[in-house]
Order: sequence, then structure tokens, then C-alpha cells
Amino acid sequence: MTIESSLESNRVQELDDLLTELKPKILSYIDQADPKSSQYNLKSLGTYHPPSFLKKELTQESNLDQPCNQKELFKVIDKVLQFSVNTWNPGFLDKLYASNNPIGVVSDILLSVLNTNSHVYTVSPVLSVIENHIGKKYAKLFFKQEKCGGLTFSGGSWSNITSLQVARSLKYPDTKVKGNQNYKFAIYSSVHCHYSVVKAAILLGIGSENVFKVDVDENGVMDVDHLIAVIDETIKQGYTPLYLNSTAGTTVFGSYDPFTKLHEICQKYNIHHHIDGSWGGNVIFSNKYKDRLEGCQFADSITVNPHKMLGVPTTCSFLLLPNVDNFQVAMSLQAPYLFHGREEDNDDGENYDLADGTMGCGRRADSFKFYLAWLYYGTKGFESRIDHAFEIKQYFIDKILSNGDFELVGPKQPQCLQVCFYYNPNKLANNTETTRFISRELHKLGKYLVDFSPNPVNDSKGEFFRVVFNSPILTDKVIDNLIDSIINIGKHL
Amino acid sequence: MTIESSLESNRVQELDDLLTELKPKILSYIDQADPKSSQYNLKSLGTYHPPSFLKKELTQESNLDQPCNQKELFKVIDKVLQFSVNTWNPGFLDKLYASNNPIGVVSDILLSVLNTNSHVYTVSPVLSVIENHIGKKYAKLFFKQEKCGGLTFSGGSWSNITSLQVARSLKYPDTKVKGNQNYKFAIYSSVHCHYSVVKAAILLGIGSENVFKVDVDENGVMDVDHLIAVIDETIKQGYTPLYLNSTAGTTVFGSYDPFTKLHEICQKYNIHHHIDGSWGGNVIFSNKYKDRLEGCQFADSITVNPHKMLGVPTTCSFLLLPNVDNFQVAMSLQAPYLFHGREEDNDDGENYDLADGTMGCGRRADSFKFYLAWLYYGTKGFESRIDHAFEIKQYFIDKILSNGDFELVGPKQPQCLQVCFYYNPNKLANNTETTRFISRELHKLGKYLVDFSPNPVNDSKGEFFRVVFNSPILTDKVIDNLIDSIINIGKHL
Repeated sequence: MTIESSLESNRVQELDDLLTELKPKILSYIDQADPKSSQYNLKSLGTYHPPSFLKKELTQESNLDQPCNQKELFKVIDKVLQFSVNTWNPGFLDKLYASNNPIGVVSDILLSVLNTNSHVYTVSPVLSVIENHIGKKYAKLFFKQEKCGGLTFSGGSWSNITSLQVARSLKYPDTKVKGNQNYKFAIYSSVHCHYSVVKAAILLGIGSENVFKVDVDENGVMDVDHLIAVIDETIKQGYTPLYLNSTAGTTVFGSYDPFTKLHEICQKYNIHHHIDGSWGGNVIFSNKYKDRLEGCQFADSITVNPHKMLGVPTTCSFLLLPNVDNFQVAMSLQAPYLFHGREEDNDDGENYDLADGTMGCGRRADSFKFYLAWLYYGTKGFESRIDHAFEIKQYFIDKILSNGDFELVGPKQPQCLQVCFYYNPNKLANNTETTRFISRELHKLGKYLVDFSPNPVNDSKGEFFRVVFNSPILTDKVIDNLIDSIINIGKHL
Repeated sequence: MTIESSLESNRVQELDDLLTELKPKILSYIDQADPKSSQYNLKSLGTYHPPSFLKKELTQESNLDQPCNQKELFKVIDKVLQFSVNTWNPGFLDKLYASNNPIGVVSDILLSVLNTNSHVYTVSPVLSVIENHIGKKYAKLFFKQEKCGGLTFSGGSWSNITSLQVARSLKYPDTKVKGNQNYKFAIYSSVHCHYSVVKAAILLGIGSENVFKVDVDENGVMDVDHLIAVIDETIKQGYTPLYLNSTAGTTVFGSYDPFTKLHEICQKYNIHHHIDGSWGGNVIFSNKYKDRLEGCQFADSITVNPHKMLGVPTTCSFLLLPNVDNFQVAMSLQAPYLFHGREEDNDDGENYDLADGTMGCGRRADSFKFYLAWLYYGTKGFESRIDHAFEIKQYFIDKILSNGDFELVGPKQPQCLQVCFYYNPNKLANNTETTRFISRELHKLGKYLVDFSPNPVNDSKGEFFRVVFNSPILTDKVIDNLIDSIINIGKHL
């Protein structure tokens, strides 16, 4: 008797064949998006299609019942590539991340081949050691403490959510066993914070109305005096101040809150001070721009995402703590069937059963992508990436301000890599229609994908453009073309 | 003036070069782990090294300050491959997942190249449509409702955590705004449930002591009478029954709870019935074994992980709901700067701004890996994968039971793909030392990685083996060799 499966019976050959077919498709996909290439396709960014159209295109031929052959498979893959937004195109300026890059693809392939679950050391010796190592290196850029370190979570929101759990567990350890009970916890954040702060409050059973929003000044920076007033008022109402979320690089304006002053307030009121640096935290790599983070060394936790400003493939988000042991203090249950607590697995006193310090179990080792990128580019490379992006942003600002039809929204000196502005050649009172029309036309041309936003503090002037400059392939030529395109479309208003 | 960065200035050539160097390394890595290959390396699974050793090996040469050249890069990559557990080896029997496979690697490469953030439709048209489509297809295997569907979360724990949030939000909508307040929520689960149920209770501010553990019978199946008694007792104590977690394929014994009966109880007491099918839910693809899920169609939510039984690369976990709209009901805040609520983006009435139905923001489209695997293998392929695994498991059971030194632990007829057993040639009263010794020796030989566990319901006989048969490359020969290896090592006790 022989028990054998026909699946995966010739894995090496099968993978070799698939990769041989796939590789030229991928290279050509990237090449088409490169303005310097002879293969450059002006529309390679991709244009808009509604969901019903894509559903038809992508699913009409796929019969999930029976296996498909290689030809049918690649027909679907071709369509996936054809209709996706090609983020390698310099016109992708819509979100707080950019394209992948060659070393990023390599790291994803290695993670895929290893198929390591970085939850316990036994099955993840290498990737767990690397995460511990690189988490410490990363944390030491921000903190002074010898025991500082970090772990990855699947996006900045999950890092922020975890930081709130760390705060509650460390300040009020009984909540781990007994729940929120009669604590009436208050959370503070500016009106410009990311929505994950409110979602964290909902998830942790604290409730959205117990997130108290603090005013910002004209630059989108948290108003410290108003924060103190809000805290005092909540205390008067019987709340227990728990957690302040400040932001390093807000979502809309890219502003940085005043961390040193906020630290002092948090000390005074026994509040956990979390910095959400998902977007702007990585200026730590630039000697020119790291001063924006002044005071971050006093924080109780920091979220920072290599998948945004550093070009590491999505997702890669770290939560950093001054004492890495506190991941376990806040999260561990010591489930005996998984965490065997073998002494030889932490022979240097560190925890390598990483899931024990999270609310999760199975994990993809996103930290490895960051490690390999850091190794490949070096601190110097990250620095030059960031400095280039800031230079491009400034070039854009200078250029639009020389044209009277553009107007900056928010800070006069944006602190991060996005620029918010109106384009209003017809001097309308409300810009929403103009902004949306131009955004769509840019997309229709397959040239640029840019975001638009209502003002996080309502004003009557309507929605504005938010354009993010965050890729090494951006040049002054691309910027010139972007501005010309906006002006040209504006003529058809 | 020209503003240009030297980074990513020749992306296509750079990626081409890296892939050219990487591909043979990967193919050889897989080839070495294949017993049928002439390149088969008996120790390719990898042997144990302590963290301090690996930290030295992996980080001594890496200077993160300056960039490294391609030669230095591949020196590190070689070490990562050399010291990692090679999951392509049939000896990897330790956890509830197996190796990746060729189509899995292809899907990871595509996700990496696309670098799509599947949070909003604008930037993720294709992958969002695919997730909606495949989530519905998947959900329809379990549920009868027309509106059923699913979303991915980064692992079974996060799907389970989300299901508890869905439960609380749907049953007690005021909690979203006001928090847990004075609700004294009770959660129920068997003593054999995964630890994520307790972690979910902690994270949601309910507290670990408010998870009430229900007894199991000798097969590890939840005791329905005891559940009723526990619920009644908690009601007497003033609790509000909120959520029952039942399990389809428990972590240790692989048991299935009686879903139909549990549904009736949940109906009676107004309890949200969640099925954690992270591990065992995918028997839905097998006509022979899907009867284990009888009654799952009445559940209020189901977690099921293609990255476990179906061989999709880690991580890929779905939370399925009878009404997909309830993801947004439970989670949405409608953050206006991200979710623009454009009518053309849901022209078929579905939500394609997927993050709006989660507690996160940025997302990697894990669903695409499942879609491509399903397309490639077909339902028939998944079915044959599962049926083969069950056949292998039964072969192992029959074989060890013909030897008086082996003894099954837990159910006499294990319902899923793992087998728990003692090997006790010396008839000792406590097996812990024997189990640990043999496990380590198997690992030292680089032949097999198997897990061990204390009984989730304490008994005095000590720790036992838990071995998982979940890969198409397992054959009766591998099983024979595994048993011989255990017996041989046992001789040295």
C-alpha cells in the first residue's frame, strides 16, 4: 500500500515553471511605470473602473470547482495586474505609502518561502531573533532605556490599539482579570488624530464618547492649554485619565505635537503618553528633520511604520516600548500548550516566543522586511530617501505658491511629506467640486492618483487636495508635470 | 536644477539581478527538503540552536549604518535560510500549518509587487473586489443567508477578537459609544478553547475572569449540560450572557463542539454563537468530513484560516458573518478623510472600502492568496488535500496502536488532523521527560519537529506528543520512518 497525494508532488519544477512565466510579467509591469524607461506607458498607473465592471472582468471565467491550468491562471494574473493601481508609477501620490522596491520584493519572497509563523521560538528561531534584535535597534533611535524594544503588529491601527492595552494593563493591572469594572477611563487626543484612537477606545470597551478631543492651533498642532483644561474637566466629572495619544505626522496636515510639554502634563496627571508616529516617526533617520520628534524619548509607547515613509512593503508597523518586557506584562496568559517556557529558548534573558507579548497568535514576521531593507540601504540610505522626499515636497510648495490660483491649507510650513492645498482659478467660495473634478480627471488620464479631504476642523471652503510626496522616483520633472496637469484640467471647469 | 534620488534609480535591472541570484537558492532550499529528490538532505529540516548563538551568527557582520552590497546581502540571506526551520520538509509536524506551495509563493510575489493597501477602493480596486467576492463564496459554504460574507484579519486570534466586538456591538449597540458601562458581560467557552478567547475578553475590557470555562467530555467536546448550568449560575450572579465560543477543531485534541445544540442554547439565552474554526473549519471542503460542522449554518460568526489546513501562506484568516454588512455596523466610524462614501465605489450595493468594516486601517490583502489557491487547485484540489491528510493520520493511528508502547491521549477517534499520544516503553507513571527527550532528539537529528503539550484538563500522566499531519507530501513511508525514529530514540531512555 502506498499513500501519496498528487498535489505538490513536483514542487521544485512547478515553482520553477511558474516563476519563469511570472518574472518577465512583473519586470515589464514595473518597467511600464518608469518615466525613464523606453517602455514607459503614460497610462500605466491605471484608470478608474467601478466594482461591478471589475467583478465581471475578474470572476466570469473563474470556475472555482475544478483546478485551472497554467494558461488560465496567468489570464487571471494578467487581469489583476492590468486593473490594479500601479504604485510603481510616480503618479501614485494618494496615500501615506509608496511603491515597493527591489529589496522589498526579495524580503517578501523569503518570508513566503520560509512560511514561518513567528509566534514561538521553536518554529521561528531566526525570524524571532531578528525581530528582537531589530526591534531594539529601532527603539534605541527613539528611547534612552537599555531595555527598550519593539514588536510588529499588522498596521499602525493595531499598534495603536495594542498601546492602549499596554497603558491600561500597566496602570491598572486588575483590569486584565476583572475588566474595566467601574473605572471611567478618559482618553485624550487632538481633533486631528487618526481614527484608530477612537476605534481603540471602542474595542477596549471604553467607548467612543470617552475619547476627549483637544483643539489644535492653525498648524494642526495640539493646543496644550486646551488639553489641560480638558483633563481638568474630565477629572471634575469623575473620570480616570488613562491615555494621551499625540501624533508625529498627522494624517491630513502632517503636523507634530509638542512631545516634551505633553510629557510633563502626562507625568503630572499619571497618564500614559503614546505617540502615534505611524507616518511621521521615521524622520528619526534624518539628521535634518529628526528635531520634529524632540521629546519623544519620554514617551511611554511609540507606533512607527516602516511601510510608510521608508518604502518597506505593506504591512510593517512597530510598537516600541521603553521596556520590552512590558509586552508580556500587558498581554501574556502563558498558554501552556504553546508557550513551553523552555529555559534554553531565552538563554540571553530575552523573550523569543513573540506572540506571548501580543493579543494574537499566528504572525507573519513583518520585521524581517524592515531588517533586510535597513541592511540593504543602511541608515544613510533611509536618510537620503527621506531628505529627497522633503526636498521634492518643498519644490512643489514653492512652485504652487508662485501661482496665485493655489492656496495652502493648514500649516504654512508643512512638517511632513504631504501638501494640502486648494486649486481655485475661478475664485469659488467652496472648492469641493473643483477638487473632486480635478482628482477624477487626473485619475481618468491614468496620470496621477491624489487624495482629497474635508478639513478635519470644519471650514466653509470645502474639500482640498492632499498630495503625498514619498518616493525616491519623484523628480522635479514629475512635479512640474503634475502642476501643469492640474492647471490644464482646471481650464475645463 | 534637477532633483533626483539615486535610490531606486534602476529598479527593473536591480530587481532582475536580485531575482536571478535568489531563484536558484530558493529552488535548492525546497529541493533539499524533498525526500524524492536526489538533492534530499536528511538534515534539511534544521536543528536546534539557542538564541544567543543565532544572534551572533546573524548580526555580527551586519553594519546597519552603511548600505551593503549584493554579496553581503546574500551572505545574510544564506544564513537566514540555513538556520530557519525548513517547513518544506515532511518532518515539519509541529504546528497546525504546513509548508507553503508554488501557487502560494506566486500569490505572495504578486501581493508584494502590487503593494496594495486593501483599505479603500480607490487604491485597491481589484483586490477589494476579489476579497468581497471570495469572502462571499467562502461564507456560502457555511451559511445559507444571501447576504453572508467575510473579511480577512491577520490571524485566527484577530478574527476571534473581532467576532467578540461584532457580538457586543450588535447585541448592545450603546457600548460602541459608551463602553462597557455597568454591563457585567459573561463569555463562555470550553476548557479546551484557544487562548485567544481569553485574550479577546481582556482586550475588550471584559476581563479574563469573566470567561467561564465549560467542561468537556472524554473526547474533548463541550459538555452541553454543564454549559447550561454555567449560564444559569452566571445569570444568578447578575451577569449578562454575551458570547459563546465553540470550537471546530480544538488546538490540542482537534475536537468539534456540538453546534446545533449550542445554537439552541444561544437562541434561548440571547447569546452570540461564535465558532472558532481556525483549524478545523476547512473540512467544509471535504464531502467525507464536512459532517463535523453540522449546525455551523446557525452560527452568528465563524473564524476559519486557509493558512492552516489549506496550505495558503501565513497569515490568511477569515471572519465570516451571516450578514456582511454587520462588519460596518459593528466597526465603522466613517472617518471622512479616508472613506469618501462615493456612490460609484459601491455600484452593486456592496462595501469595497474594506477597512471600514474592521478595527484596522492599512491591510495586506491576504484574501488574494486564498483566491489564487482556490482558483489553482479548485474545490476538488482542496478536498483531495484534506482527504489525503485524514488518510495519513488514520494510517499513523492504526500503526502506533499495533504497538503496545503507544497510547492515544484524548479521543479514541480524533476528529481532525492531529494525533495526541504517549510513547512509554518503560511504563513510567509520568511521561513528561520521555516526551521532551524524544522530541528534542528528533529535532537534533534534523528529522522531525513535533510538538508536545500538557493535558488541557490536568491528568497526572504528564506531557504527551501532539503531531499534526497536514501536508500533501506526507506519505506512508514518512510515517513509518517517524514511528521507527521514535522507537529508536526510546531505546536510549
